[in-house]
Amino acid sequence: MSETKTVTACLLIIGNEVLSGRTQDANLQYLAKSLNEIGVRLMEARVIPDVEETIIATVNECRAKFDYVITTGGIGPTHDDITSVCVSKAFGVRHVRNPEAEARLRRHYARPEDVNTQRLRMAEMPEGAELIDNPVSKAPGFRIGNVIVLAGVPRIMQAMFEGYRHKLKGGAPMLSRTVVAFVPEGKMAAGLGQAQAAHPAVEIGSYPFFRDGKLGASLVVRGTDVAAVAAATEAVKATVRAQGGEPAEEK
Amino acid sequence: MSETKTVTACLLIIGNEVLSGRTQDANLQYLAKSLNEIGVRLMEARVIPDVEETIIATVNECRAKFDYVITTGGIGPTHDDITSVCVSKAFGVRHVRNPEAEARLRRHYARPEDVNTQRLRMAEMPEGAELIDNPVSKAPGFRIGNVIVLAGVPRIMQAMFEGYRHKLKGGAPMLSRTVVAFVPEGKMAAGLGQAQAAHPAVEIGSYPFFRDGKLGASLVVRGTDVAAVAAATEAVKATVRAQGGEPAEEK
Repeated sequence: MSETKTVTACLLIIGNEVLSGRTQDANLQYLAKSLNEIGVRLMEARVIPDVEETIIATVNECRAKFDYVITTGGIGPTHDDITSVCVSKAFGVRHVRNPEAEARLRRHYARPEDVNTQRLRMAEMPEGAELIDNPVSKAPGFRIGNVIVLAGVPRIMQAMFEGYRHKLKGGAPMLSRTVVAFVPEGKMAAGLGQAQAAHPAVEIGSYPFFRDGKLGASLVVRGTDVAAVAAATEAVKATVRAQGGEPAEEK
Repeated sequence: MSETKTVTACLLIIGNEVLSGRTQDANLQYLAKSLNEIGVRLMEARVIPDVEETIIATVNECRAKFDYVITTGGIGPTHDDITSVCVSKAFGVRHVRNPEAEARLRRHYARPEDVNTQRLRMAEMPEGAELIDNPVSKAPGFRIGNVIVLAGVPRIMQAMFEGYRHKLKGGAPMLSRTVVAFVPEGKMAAGLGQAQAAHPAVEIGSYPFFRDGKLGASLVVRGTDVAAVAAATEAVKATVRAQGGEPAEEK
């Protein structure tokens, strides 16, 4: 088993539009995979509304509990964009206009009058925050402490994250192998439970599916140690064969 | 403004596969819309791992905070399906085999030996729980107190919810009107802020988009009172026109 400490993250998806069902979140899956690549494990995600007390309380609870907190959404120019000011309040620091962020906005807009008071809100952030570049629409995200504040629009969020991810310190990356079997999971359940008990250094997950008219399950083995993952994968394959199935490993 | 109390719900999406990015959640959006139709407002959603202490603590925190808690995932037959037993522990009641649930499983499987110990786990639930029918694969969900436990597979979750939703008591349904404008939201931000201040009974949300090569925003007015929503929608349309745009209302 790896001795490296697990580095954890929590994602806060901020926005009424996700909770109302108007918008399908696309950021959780992207960030889960990207964080995993750099050895950061997403342990929880919360979708919360644009409500000041909720955002402040959640940021404070989660930044104490996880190594990193990433927020998406609520950093645009309109009245319902309150993430930045809530993060300032959560940290108990002044909410100030960042000169570099302001300069970027002024360079971005063609005419001086386009840089109105509302758009300048996008240059306001907690005092002492570090900017996170936004190559798409210029208004930056930021980081303060272990809290990383990103845009909600997936294309912008992804560009911000890709430019910033090298600054995050991860632990051992999670390795994953997937065995697909056309055997109902209820038949394999005893064997899978034994495989899990015999290989406590990994997580074995069973995800049933119905494909080509047949019931089956994807059996996922996850862990940070390549040999432990390999051994558990063999145990999973043996379980499939014991129920008359032919295990196929997903690439 | 409606005098009806707001009825709230929290969704707990339970499963490592969502947090690892392997599976894209499809249940939040469906439940958000369906709950809204019956006057129940989704106030928060949490994605949590298959970890006993986390599930128990989250269920107990959220059932005290919201009128309803709905869980999805973790009620299958394998070792990683621990939602039901965690809910029993959260409520401090015995975890027992429900005779009616067992009878349904025994009717469902062709041969008696197919009803193995692992599959019978799907008939175990908190003592006193009410069954929620599963017309797809028979293993029922259940309700105890204000906690409603559903499957994670979207097709099964939806079938369970559709058969049970008439038992939930909602408040006034949230009405929603959407105005689409090909005007950058930064130009409309001041006017939208004024519209929000003048119409505190509704929520006005601004969601930017880039469509057909043009920047624009969907402006969403939500509230429970039809006249208040209508008045705010007119204010939003006036804001669009003041910036030279032509407001178009989405059907």
